[in-house]
Amino acid sequence: MWQLYQFPLCPFSRKVRLLLGEKGIGYEPVRESPWLRRDEFLDLNPTGQVPVMVDTDRGVALIDSTVICEFFEETVDKAAMLNGTAVDRAEIRRLVVWFDSNFFRDITAPLLEERMIKRLVHRTAPDARALRDAMKAAVGHLDYIDYLLDHRTWLAGPTMSLADLAAAAQISIADYLGGIDWKSHEQAKRWYVGMKSRPSFRPLLSERMDGIPPPSDYDKLDD
Amino acid sequence: MWQLYQFPLCPFSRKVRLLLGEKGIGYEPVRESPWLRRDEFLDLNPTGQVPVMVDTDRGVALIDSTVICEFFEETVDKAAMLNGTAVDRAEIRRLVVWFDSNFFRDITAPLLEERMIKRLVHRTAPDARALRDAMKAAVGHLDYIDYLLDHRTWLAGPTMSLADLAAAAQISIADYLGGIDWKSHEQAKRWYVGMKSRPSFRPLLSERMDGIPPPSDYDKLDD
Ligand SMILES: N[C@@H](CCC(=O)N[C@@H](CS)C(=O)NCC(=O)O)C(=O)O
Ligand SMILES: N[C@@H](CCC(=O)N[C@@H](CS)C(=O)NCC(=O)O)C(=O)O
Repeated sequence: MWQLYQFPLCPFSRKVRLLLGEKGIGYEPVRESPWLRRDEFLDLNPTGQVPVMVDTDRGVALIDSTVICEFFEETVDKAAMLNGTAVDRAEIRRLVVWFDSNFFRDITAPLLEERMIKRLVHRTAPDARALRDAMKAAVGHLDYIDYLLDHRTWLAGPTMSLADLAAAAQISIADYLGGIDWKSHEQAKRWYVGMKSRPSFRPLLSERMDGIPPPSDYDKLDD
Repeated sequence: MWQLYQFPLCPFSRKVRLLLGEKGIGYEPVRESPWLRRDEFLDLNPTGQVPVMVDTDRGVALIDSTVICEFFEETVDKAAMLNGTAVDRAEIRRLVVWFDSNFFRDITAPLLEERMIKRLVHRTAPDARALRDAMKAAVGHLDYIDYLLDHRTWLAGPTMSLADLAAAAQISIADYLGGIDWKSHEQAKRWYVGMKSRPSFRPLLSERMDGIPPPSDYDKLDD
């Protein structure tokens, strides 16, 4: 039985959960708050980060969202998310790195710091300027998504791929934390509404983080 | 013809160059200093980072060291560096992420900032405390390498893998910048001397960055 160590607002865990959902792989979510730095969790993963997946029967631990995704792409054929030629796969992986690194660094990470960590750990108010910078960065990233969709049906090409899952995972957390303004990003919005309506996405959208309510249109399918 | 955009002290470019060397893939190195943020380079890679590999004949660009390594693993069988079962491959990839992210963040990145960027860009002196912290972090990382080698011949298992290339690439830059003290790390040192003596490593060791000389034992094979 696979267990997934995660918390509801971790974008990397969401990317993994979307992939598992698309592939129809069952797992038990285990709630882990990495900021508590639990000794048992640090023994499992020296980086102290989620997501981690553990196969309790075989004693296998998979660490890091990209490592986990590559593992299930290699072992489960259903709903392949790294499709096409080696060059196509390089483009998919490039975009996954882009959203995991740049979108996360510019938008998701500061929003999590200001709206989640400051509330749960430090019990201080968010910094208005950091929030403003993150929301401004989000406009640039949505522009880039619009640009990709000018030429393509999905972010990396003609079929849905891990790039779409990585992007939707980051955006969904940014959206939960009030960082996304869809104004004048019709194309990106249409793509994201399509992602939100997938069965793999529904369980994520219904989850809540205690004390941090999302905006009212967060889980609406037509918005 | 493959071109590789890089500069001599980029650890991610070194990881790629070690892989290309092991696989016997020819390429033309193109010197790129990402801190100059050249417009033409930003058009090629919106992150502005090296390494980037370009196939000038086919008009293909591969962006990000991990993307590049996965591409050549998929397309060139010689000297496979992601060997074994899916679980073995997950362990190799986990360690690559560990060295690319944690070793880089704790050691290589601050050393590059203090000893290279401050000299070349800001023309200021390095911060002694940041250097000390990086050297202290290096001790912890060498301890981890010793621990891995207690149980294994190579970092990820019985055969040389991308994990060894990623680790050696980071260490070689930290060593060039005077951040590595091998004292009481005999096992890690023996492994690293083995890496240094590989034909794929020799061309890297003979390169110099203008105005930044390495310590005298940096390219010695017995040290
Ligand atoms: N490269 C990792 C990044 C994971 C990550 O940054 N996780 C965050 C939560 S969103 C975390 O655990 N942070 C706690 C920490 O860094 O100490 C992956 O892709 O899995
Ligand atoms: N994830 C990237 C990281 C590459 C990276 O950090 N490159 C550095 C040089 S060592 C760079 O280009 N920095 C310039 C910048 O970030 O603007 C990879 O693995 O290729």
